[in-house]
Amino acid sequence: VKRVAVMMGSESDLPVMRKAKDVLDGLGVPCTMTIASAHRTPDRVIELVASYEADDVGVIIAGAGAAAHLAGAVAGRTVLPVIGVPLASGALQGLDALLATVQMPSGVPVATVAVDGAANAGVLAAQILAVHDTTLAERLRKRRAESAQTVLDKARELEDG
Amino acid sequence: VKRVAVMMGSESDLPVMRKAKDVLDGLGVPCTMTIASAHRTPDRVIELVASYEADDVGVIIAGAGAAAHLAGAVAGRTVLPVIGVPLASGALQGLDALLATVQMPSGVPVATVAVDGAANAGVLAAQILAVHDTTLAERLRKRRAESAQTVLDKARELEDG
Amino acid sequence: VKRVAVMMGSESDLPVMRKAKDVLDGLGVPCTMTIASAHRTPDRVIELVASYEADDVGVIIAGAGAAAHLAGAVAGRTVLPVIGVPLASGALQGLDALLATVQMPSGVPVATVAVDGAANAGVLAAQILAVHDTTLAERLRKRRAESAQTVLDKARELEDG
Amino acid sequence: VKRVAVMMGSESDLPVMRKAKDVLDGLGVPCTMTIASAHRTPDRVIELVASYEADDVGVIIAGAGAAAHLAGAVAGRTVLPVIGVPLASGALQGLDALLATVQMPSGVPVATVAVDGAANAGVLAAQILAVHDTTLAERLRKRRAESAQTVLDKARELEDG
Amino acid sequence: VKRVAVMMGSESDLPVMRKAKDVLDGLGVPCTMTIASAHRTPDRVIELVASYEADDVGVIIAGAGAAAHLAGAVAGRTVLPVIGVPLASGALQGLDALLATVQMPSGVPVATVAVDGAANAGVLAAQILAVHDTTLAERLRKRRAESAQTVLDKARELEDG
Amino acid sequence: VKRVAVMMGSESDLPVMRKAKDVLDGLGVPCTMTIASAHRTPDRVIELVASYEADDVGVIIAGAGAAAHLAGAVAGRTVLPVIGVPLASGALQGLDALLATVQMPSGVPVATVAVDGAANAGVLAAQILAVHDTTLAERLRKRRAESAQTVLDKARELEDG
Amino acid sequence: VKRVAVMMGSESDLPVMRKAKDVLDGLGVPCTMTIASAHRTPDRVIELVASYEADDVGVIIAGAGAAAHLAGAVAGRTVLPVIGVPLASGALQGLDALLATVQMPSGVPVATVAVDGAANAGVLAAQILAVHDTTLAERLRKRRAESAQTVLDKARELEDG
Amino acid sequence: VKRVAVMMGSESDLPVMRKAKDVLDGLGVPCTMTIASAHRTPDRVIELVASYEADDVGVIIAGAGAAAHLAGAVAGRTVLPVIGVPLASGALQGLDALLATVQMPSGVPVATVAVDGAANAGVLAAQILAVHDTTLAERLRKRRAESAQTVLDKARELEDG
Repeated sequence: VKRVAVMMGSESDLPVMRKAKDVLDGLGVPCTMTIASAHRTPDRVIELVASYEADDVGVIIAGAGAAAHLAGAVAGRTVLPVIGVPLASGALQGLDALLATVQMPSGVPVATVAVDGAANAGVLAAQILAVHDTTLAERLRKRRAESAQTVLDKARELEDG
Repeated sequence: VKRVAVMMGSESDLPVMRKAKDVLDGLGVPCTMTIASAHRTPDRVIELVASYEADDVGVIIAGAGAAAHLAGAVAGRTVLPVIGVPLASGALQGLDALLATVQMPSGVPVATVAVDGAANAGVLAAQILAVHDTTLAERLRKRRAESAQTVLDKARELEDG
Repeated sequence: VKRVAVMMGSESDLPVMRKAKDVLDGLGVPCTMTIASAHRTPDRVIELVASYEADDVGVIIAGAGAAAHLAGAVAGRTVLPVIGVPLASGALQGLDALLATVQMPSGVPVATVAVDGAANAGVLAAQILAVHDTTLAERLRKRRAESAQTVLDKARELEDG
Repeated sequence: VKRVAVMMGSESDLPVMRKAKDVLDGLGVPCTMTIASAHRTPDRVIELVASYEADDVGVIIAGAGAAAHLAGAVAGRTVLPVIGVPLASGALQGLDALLATVQMPSGVPVATVAVDGAANAGVLAAQILAVHDTTLAERLRKRRAESAQTVLDKARELEDG
Repeated sequence: VKRVAVMMGSESDLPVMRKAKDVLDGLGVPCTMTIASAHRTPDRVIELVASYEADDVGVIIAGAGAAAHLAGAVAGRTVLPVIGVPLASGALQGLDALLATVQMPSGVPVATVAVDGAANAGVLAAQILAVHDTTLAERLRKRRAESAQTVLDKARELEDG
Repeated sequence: VKRVAVMMGSESDLPVMRKAKDVLDGLGVPCTMTIASAHRTPDRVIELVASYEADDVGVIIAGAGAAAHLAGAVAGRTVLPVIGVPLASGALQGLDALLATVQMPSGVPVATVAVDGAANAGVLAAQILAVHDTTLAERLRKRRAESAQTVLDKARELEDG
Repeated sequence: VKRVAVMMGSESDLPVMRKAKDVLDGLGVPCTMTIASAHRTPDRVIELVASYEADDVGVIIAGAGAAAHLAGAVAGRTVLPVIGVPLASGALQGLDALLATVQMPSGVPVATVAVDGAANAGVLAAQILAVHDTTLAERLRKRRAESAQTVLDKARELEDG
Repeated sequence: VKRVAVMMGSESDLPVMRKAKDVLDGLGVPCTMTIASAHRTPDRVIELVASYEADDVGVIIAGAGAAAHLAGAVAGRTVLPVIGVPLASGALQGLDALLATVQMPSGVPVATVAVDGAANAGVLAAQILAVHDTTLAERLRKRRAESAQTVLDKARELEDG
């Protein structure tokens, strides 16, 4: 079974990025997290990606803020699907990270989720692995159904309110 | 072997969206294209997604402009990975489509590529299928190497200028 | 007499969306509120809209944030007038919701009000019903006059201040 | 039967704004068009709105560009529903007109459609009148069905292509 | 001697707009303040502007937020110079008010200052009156010199720090 | 009688900036035009402003694009009213010039008009001079009335269509 | 040995701008700080730049907010490299300062760093001086290595966590 | 004497990036140009930067569009000063490239110039080398004087018009 590797550019990204792991844990998908900066530790990024390719990693999630290059730098080193999480930080509030993550040149895509959308990065990684894993697909459907039920319960509560 | 389904919201999106199919054809990935509007033919979207789930579709690509809902509407109906292509059109030049595609709520991700990035949507779909297909992964690596070679050739030409 | 149906994408939208109901209550316009997510409960949205069409609903108000699809998803299912309320949430502060709500394709309009403008959605819904209800139109004119008087009172206070 | 009044801030807005009238003509809704500038002919705006209120006008459509005040100026003078069409013009390409039209203060809503969305303004006006006109509602449903059929035909063509 | 009239769209604008009066008081320029909403009290705006034209008013300052129409509405009713102060409020943080204030159509200018720049509106009003008032021009130069001195003192402090 | 000095940062700004002079010529206001760059000829800017202060200049108009500093640089050297015209140029289409012109610090205002709004800069300059020149005020009112008449004529034409 | 001169437009910029000096102190690069406003003390800016040119200054760092002209004003007076730090302040949160700093006209560049990126301005100034100073280059490499080590330590901690 | 290395992400960037070399040629500064993509040829970027560090390169200029990572990727591999040129391309017109280039994390600055500002990148590179090269500084001052003279000539022409 394939694993998901979660990378983040800085320790300060952990409170948001940890949500990706929480989702994957809940779905029973193996997941590891680490820190690697595209600009401060570029060689570490290369080594990690090489180890992921050699290893049992199926999807890489990379979160970074500002001139968010991490997901793109990873994507340039692998043909594994790379999910980018633009992180809001500083004055421009994530618009910079969103554009720096999503506007990738032809040939090297990054599957970008919403600003601070780490939980959805976890869901998307699971969806990718579930293309060939019917048990996981079933778990995702169940999760979706539970989420729908939560909406229904809240609706009921409001209507009866 | 899994197939990729390419959807677009309007016939006018074809010149851009066709690039996704061109990439997939080049990689030997089966791919079908159709038109379906989240707002003008919502039932058709539901039927198509249901048929994709029942069928051999592994990844869905959805391109739309303006208040681009197609990818999100599809994503709300399946746990297959959905790739969104925001299309530039009208006065706001794709910023509207980008935000309407990428800013999905928790639980229902859309893997968003660049504005008008249909070619990269094709590459990303192939990368997702290649997680469990080493032959396809090899083809993707070859494509990447050729792209690198093109850059090198152009660089040589410029340097020898 | 027609009723207004207020929908919101999530329970967390209630503090803002409730203002629409407050306005309609004040004008004596029947109004119900519920929660339905375009992405997490798409079938519920369809059922609700169908029930509104069959029922005595004259106007639908839909509020959502981020890639705000709710109003558009509703509008694609009915020819009742649909008022969209873009809700500010997350890093991009409502610009995403505004563009995702207002930039609808030809044939399927959403009557969009300001970001977080739920109170005005209530006023607009009443104005729509008042096209054929002179009593309600009179109440709206009275409300407008009172609002003008409040401005005048504050002006007097400031000038005498 | 109620009529729709289409106003525009300048003669140069006619090529876009005429689409509202085309839609309404197609739906058999009476519609008149005129030019009135909130800044260059403010008294004319007041007189027109007063005549609309006295007359058989049910909905007002107002299109303007740049610091687009026309719809808001009209809305401040009537409790008829006012639909605003932000028009793209000049360097900022409609973002100025969109924000100046949609961000109305509490109590005085403008039902805003997409930038250059005059056709949808026509549809929305008809939807508002159709709340109490089942024949018109039927015509709107027929128009929607035809639009869906066009999508289906194009889809068929592409699939058979 | 001419007077400056300061208008604001809402009582909540007072904490910012009062800075215009503070500046004018400090320069010995007569100044009155009042509240008038372009949308909620449009007739009051007309009456005030007419009274300003008949009276000894030389410059009008108008501050408003969101779809900030006040300055433009005033400018459409007078050939007195009108200074617009876009006020930050709500989710879009003043970008809406800035564009709605500054992007006026040909023939009806609004002299726009920075977002929340009420103090500078006061300075600009005084500069306009000082074109024909050498005493006031002298006071403005003195104010400028004092402001320069403050910078120099702070610089000295920092350098000696 | 006071004169208006029109400055522009580059020869390429002439086609837009000339409209300021055209308006002033039409109103019989003396007006001179010149080129001076805040960055390429900063000393020339200082000399020009000094000569304007010594001379019969009542208002300065300054137009520049991109990091548009000209109006601000002039404003820092005089207490004459300075009107800034942000010019659209290059990729960012005038948003850069608008923000660089309007967002001046406290104490040094620039009266900013719309992007490429040189004609309105001319009108505003005349309005400022007209505060103490009833003949010019009369001419401005006549111009406003003619502009209104043009709108009325176009409206008549459209209505009679 | 060359010195770095750090300028800021206002005393309130000190908490951010001081980080440039902290970095340079840590690298053993002589550095002085002062306050000078392009708009409130333009002559002081000229005198300071002239003294820097005559003196042992190798690089100038200039930080300012809003219509941030300081770096550009300095750059127009010297051929020394000028580093601009756009500072976030007020409603527009640094986008205004970024565009006003970076979009300089041809011939007069400002080396712009991130919004509030004063620390990086210090690093960049040192990098410029290190082009001809191998000892300083070595210190910069050491600093970079330490920063990489910090990332590695945090990564270890998280992985072992 | 040090050389400037100009890198660009794609052959299509040449028409803009060539202006950097033209400026440097005019100033007598040795300059080489090549193509290297951060995403398509990441190893080539590493090799080039290593060779630049070993060689006589004093400044690196890197131009790229969209999610413009090239300058940042280079900056993460060297302590040489790196100048970034954001290139306008595609729907978002350079705002993406600007933010992706300038918003670098602490410790790894990129000296960013205007969108499409390749000529200024050449000037800035020369200014950096001129810190320790009085002959080059003199040439830069001469260039600046000529540029000022051009403005003066154009001004004369306009004034004599």
